Amino acid sequence: MDSDTENGRRSDGALPDVSADDIDELLAEMTLEEKAGQLAGTYVGKLGTEKTFEDAEREIAESHIGAVSPFGIGITTLDEPARAAEAANRLQRHAIEETRLGIPLLVPVDAVHGHAYINGATIFPHNVGMAAARDTELVERGGEVTAREARATGATLNYGPTVDVARDQRWGRVFETYGESPYLCGELAAAEARGLRGSDDNDPTIATTAKHFPAYGKPERGEDASVVEVSESTFRRTFLPAFERVLAEGVDVVMPCYNSIDGEPAHGSERFLTDLLRGELGFDGFVTSDWGGVDHLHEDHRTSDSRRTSAFQAFTAGLDLVSVGGPDYAEELVELVRAEELSERRLDESVRRVLELKARLGLFEDPYVEPDAVTEALSAEDHRDASLEAARESMTLLKNDGVLPLSESLDDVLVTGPNADDLHHQFGGWSVMDDSNLQGVTVREGVENVVGAESVTYEEGATITEDAGIDAAADAAESADAAVVVLGEDWYIHEFGPQQMNRPTGEFPTRTRLELPEAQRDLLEAVRETGTPTVLVLVSGRPLSIPWADENVPGILAAYYPGMDGGTAVAETLFGRHNPSGRLPVSVPRSAAHLPTLFDHLPHPTPIGADEHPDSYDPLYPFGHGLSFTDFEVSDLTLSAESVGPAGTVTASVTVENVGDRAGERSVDLFVEDAVSSRVTPVREHVGFAKASLDPGESAELEMTVPVESLAVRAGDCDRVEPGEFVFSCEGETASLTVERGRN
Amino acid sequence: MDSDTENGRRSDGALPDVSADDIDELLAEMTLEEKAGQLAGTYVGKLGTEKTFEDAEREIAESHIGAVSPFGIGITTLDEPARAAEAANRLQRHAIEETRLGIPLLVPVDAVHGHAYINGATIFPHNVGMAAARDTELVERGGEVTAREARATGATLNYGPTVDVARDQRWGRVFETYGESPYLCGELAAAEARGLRGSDDNDPTIATTAKHFPAYGKPERGEDASVVEVSESTFRRTFLPAFERVLAEGVDVVMPCYNSIDGEPAHGSERFLTDLLRGELGFDGFVTSDWGGVDHLHEDHRTSDSRRTSAFQAFTAGLDLVSVGGPDYAEELVELVRAEELSERRLDESVRRVLELKARLGLFEDPYVEPDAVTEALSAEDHRDASLEAARESMTLLKNDGVLPLSESLDDVLVTGPNADDLHHQFGGWSVMDDSNLQGVTVREGVENVVGAESVTYEEGATITEDAGIDAAADAAESADAAVVVLGEDWYIHEFGPQQMNRPTGEFPTRTRLELPEAQRDLLEAVRETGTPTVLVLVSGRPLSIPWADENVPGILAAYYPGMDGGTAVAETLFGRHNPSGRLPVSVPRSAAHLPTLFDHLPHPTPIGADEHPDSYDPLYPFGHGLSFTDFEVSDLTLSAESVGPAGTVTASVTVENVGDRAGERSVDLFVEDAVSSRVTPVREHVGFAKASLDPGESAELEMTVPVESLAVRAGDCDRVEPGEFVFSCEGETASLTVERGRN
Repeated sequence: MDSDTENGRRSDGALPDVSADDIDELLAEMTLEEKAGQLAGTYVGKLGTEKTFEDAEREIAESHIGAVSPFGIGITTLDEPARAAEAANRLQRHAIEETRLGIPLLVPVDAVHGHAYINGATIFPHNVGMAAARDTELVERGGEVTAREARATGATLNYGPTVDVARDQRWGRVFETYGESPYLCGELAAAEARGLRGSDDNDPTIATTAKHFPAYGKPERGEDASVVEVSESTFRRTFLPAFERVLAEGVDVVMPCYNSIDGEPAHGSERFLTDLLRGELGFDGFVTSDWGGVDHLHEDHRTSDSRRTSAFQAFTAGLDLVSVGGPDYAEELVELVRAEELSERRLDESVRRVLELKARLGLFEDPYVEPDAVTEALSAEDHRDASLEAARESMTLLKNDGVLPLSESLDDVLVTGPNADDLHHQFGGWSVMDDSNLQGVTVREGVENVVGAESVTYEEGATITEDAGIDAAADAAESADAAVVVLGEDWYIHEFGPQQMNRPTGEFPTRTRLELPEAQRDLLEAVRETGTPTVLVLVSGRPLSIPWADENVPGILAAYYPGMDGGTAVAETLFGRHNPSGRLPVSVPRSAAHLPTLFDHLPHPTPIGADEHPDSYDPLYPFGHGLSFTDFEVSDLTLSAESVGPAGTVTASVTVENVGDRAGERSVDLFVEDAVSSRVTPVREHVGFAKASLDPGESAELEMTVPVESLAVRAGDCDRVEPGEFVFSCEGETASLTVERGRN
Repeated sequence: MDSDTENGRRSDGALPDVSADDIDELLAEMTLEEKAGQLAGTYVGKLGTEKTFEDAEREIAESHIGAVSPFGIGITTLDEPARAAEAANRLQRHAIEETRLGIPLLVPVDAVHGHAYINGATIFPHNVGMAAARDTELVERGGEVTAREARATGATLNYGPTVDVARDQRWGRVFETYGESPYLCGELAAAEARGLRGSDDNDPTIATTAKHFPAYGKPERGEDASVVEVSESTFRRTFLPAFERVLAEGVDVVMPCYNSIDGEPAHGSERFLTDLLRGELGFDGFVTSDWGGVDHLHEDHRTSDSRRTSAFQAFTAGLDLVSVGGPDYAEELVELVRAEELSERRLDESVRRVLELKARLGLFEDPYVEPDAVTEALSAEDHRDASLEAARESMTLLKNDGVLPLSESLDDVLVTGPNADDLHHQFGGWSVMDDSNLQGVTVREGVENVVGAESVTYEEGATITEDAGIDAAADAAESADAAVVVLGEDWYIHEFGPQQMNRPTGEFPTRTRLELPEAQRDLLEAVRETGTPTVLVLVSGRPLSIPWADENVPGILAAYYPGMDGGTAVAETLFGRHNPSGRLPVSVPRSAAHLPTLFDHLPHPTPIGADEHPDSYDPLYPFGHGLSFTDFEVSDLTLSAESVGPAGTVTASVTVENVGDRAGERSVDLFVEDAVSSRVTPVREHVGFAKASLDPGESAELEMTVPVESLAVRAGDCDRVEPGEFVFSCEGETASLTVERGRN
């Protein structure tokens, strides 16, 4: 087949052995039923209905189903590495040996922070923590490791990177995003896509998915999958740029969001999936549904009255695969073509995309993996190093009145709280479920590794919502030299579920509460009241509102969901072996009543005076906040030019100096404000970041290059860079750029 | 001049004596400066800058200013009736006698709940309370009274009705709206416009203003004048229908909103003020700025870099009057025409609209009023009756465990709380400021009037935010037979200001808190803990979140801002002289963290199961909630037809029966759900209301007629009624309608 280095295609030059002619030939040979089967996937496991391997094999043989998700989607118990690989092989073998045409399967996986549904695989911090590191290479490396491990177990298509921008801190999927900055989300999702795609020697590879298109991260009420209520210009300014960035980087697949926007459910929207995605953004890969996204059209959105109408709408809109639609949807597609409601040509388009992807992944040559080699692939030392390094870099010191770093020679350190010794909580959602033999280091273990087990007292103190020995913890704190209180959220997916594994619906974590539950706060207060130096460590997927702790606890560390080696990273940070450099990728609001709390809000009038309004942006901790154990000075923001044309670029540079007495890393964020524009533009937009590693006394110049086209006013389908003044800012420094018409 | 009975024009047939030819002649005679002066108003009073009468007179004489606001805007101290009339006369005289052409002035006023800046005028409940009554005649009557009293003091243009729909309960202007239902807002604002315009015998009249166009009531963060962030379809479904309804009813003036929508500040938006308002909606009256709305273009929105550019943008967009722009803006307009940036023809258009309005109001014949007659006009007994009746009908009983009604023969009733004896709090914002000789009845006085002063103990207990004798109140409660605790908010305008008259910015009432302040809650708890039967009365502009009271206090009455006779209405309700029938026009959320909490939200998928989501609409008290002292049964929802064409109407009827033992009024709300539609539509939309007054045992059939076109899907600029099923619902009853293509 032709090599295609443009949108959505790998550009590594590794041409598969199946040509375009081969695909034409195959397509010509396929019956209508065989085509429809390629466009409706199935699964093994329990998702409402439980499907066994035998079920899946029957669907492959009888309905020509071309994609099966045997593991790593939502909730799975198929978490033993070699068994997972064997399962994938078994399914591929069935497809190849037991069907007329022997077309290999797509085997999708939700590997969103490592191949984390497999026990023993490398589990990275979730994206929100990765984003705190402000380090594209770190994220790219995470993608590489994830791809190698996932492919080793037989997965061929990853449902990542996540390109969503988190614009409501209540949302149950904040942790899966790279935060609230459209720019950061685009850059890091692109880095993840690069990593997942891998380099030339990383073969076989795995296909990548940009999700969830076009706008998911600002659900009404913070309720998962509810309407994203935005104007056209906010839609284009906030949500599209990250997708544009990732599509330019190259992904194979795009997955629509569940929700509706402007009354249109993405899964049934020709406007979004064809006009915007393929037309305006030029994507030519394939589009897969998010689970029951097509069912939702008739079940929830009510833009359709039946499964058949939903299938019609989705394929008319531009969908290519109903990811778990199974024989039901395959049949609907056949019927739609027979009834001449949908053309067979339309189906052929989608089938061709599916076959091309399978060819590109080399599946026609060899769809099998080596179960014996999986364990080795998963235990590669450099994989785990990458995870630990990521966890370290994500550590974000929110407050330090001097209590940190703690001394390693303390005799008695109390470690307490529901997240001190629970790997499931530390991993967060979309992770291995098994309780036995979990691989990882908890905070308790991490602290024991630093100061010695004999110097650590552990008390659970509280579960996420209940007293589990607060008095005992307080007693232990009385006699301790220091107390580490590890609070936050447990794991969850979507709207904080599933309840049968986690908690009753509405119990914390829940969308209407960003404050810690009573029991956790009681534990923190009881420990703090002893007067023992106390540090709060937050393990959570969302930025929690902790006004009391901010007032009363001398040290606060945000650890996000730090992954398998999170306990090590936390302990190294608390005791100063690691100097923290993470910076918040999402604002910490004072309360949910303050929402939306976003650094790049739009300006507005204050009719009876600006001093009559509490600040529009008044977070407890702002976007970009993060402390270090050393001191840095940032100075001399300069631009490479005073004026530039609309098609040019400008490079901003700042000097960062370590003026303290410890080595450390320091990242900076660059913002810009459009002084005057035809549409209202944000008070500032994030347009760059960079990071330096500096010894005491050392300084470095950090450069951040900004294409002027990224300063465009986003107004409907007319994006344009408007001449005039743009004010760049970085750490209190400002510099002005004039964009001039008629220049390059 | 020609009679014009269409959009924006009075249709009473009372033709003024100034003809269109006269206006042509006048326009031809005017210099550029005289024209510009007609398009820039001024004021007397203090608004940032203090302007005296002498200042205004100089601006009239020197800059040909054609509109002056001498009272009743924002904050005024010119509240003595006869003096207000004299002031208006003085200004008119100056315009007529001291200018070359003697053109009379427009004298605008913010009379939004009666002519309430004038002491002794009739002060009605604010709109949110009026809306609870579900009674268009009541609202119309309020408009009539307001117009008579305002015109009697020399006002010629009212900045009302408010057509805003309150979609964020945090907002500081919720009380000025008719609530969260687009339908209710449209119907009641139209009724107010009818009333303000008056009937044939209500002459001279006052001009009416639909404000704030096109969408103001869903500010981000609940922050006044911040961005309204909505999709095109939500914009058209939620905000436009009320304006369409009011424009169809007929208003003279439209006022843009301060905020931006889709990046466009309304004051500078040709899309909103010309394409939408004049083009699509067919409005041909005149458009006035809201105060500094034009300044905000360069000062806040940054779509302009100077006053001149803002003037250019606003007049290009379609503005006709910079309401308080004064000589500065008059000069800018002159300069813009001289520089040939703006055509004089464009100015002529606006001047013609201003002159036509002045002619229509009869100001060229007689712009003066009779100061001696003002007091009589204001003290008309039927005016005050109308206010008391409105207050009664607004009373909304949220909870009653049987404690209400109280017995009139109680010997000792404790009345306590910051809103028990404060007329300013009871009036709410946009009301008379003077502290002496305020006209009205407080709750304390109302209770004294029912049970006798000797049977009432009054303790302030708390101010809005501070303990002011909680212990004393609790002590008094111990010995009392019943306790009436009157809590809530004090008065405010915009973002809970102004602080120099009210409270420091950020102190309650403030947008980030819907819960009662500590002091008020402490007072309530202390009284309740005595075991004395306790009733909570809420006097407030916003629906407050009172979960503790809902759990613990046996009786709760929402009084909104009930106006001058609110104390009487509250007392009559508490003691059963009046049987309450108010129904919430706005949902009471459980907390601000639950927002948005709206009865007509859009449906959405629940990817891992509906039972994983706390309800999307889970208010403490829902829209339409309101109890009575008698019991009603609502049954037999029937439709006048089973099927109908897209241009038809359908009448829904229900039977309401009083099955209790007291006479009472009962209103019902009618909702509709579009079963399947091309765009996602709300779970229900409000399309009707009706009310019956019934003796025990009596029943009535209530009819509500719905034009099928109001069931249209609102999608961009394409509104269409889609064939198919529509499910009507009323009080748990449902009935189905089929809309058929190709029928009338």
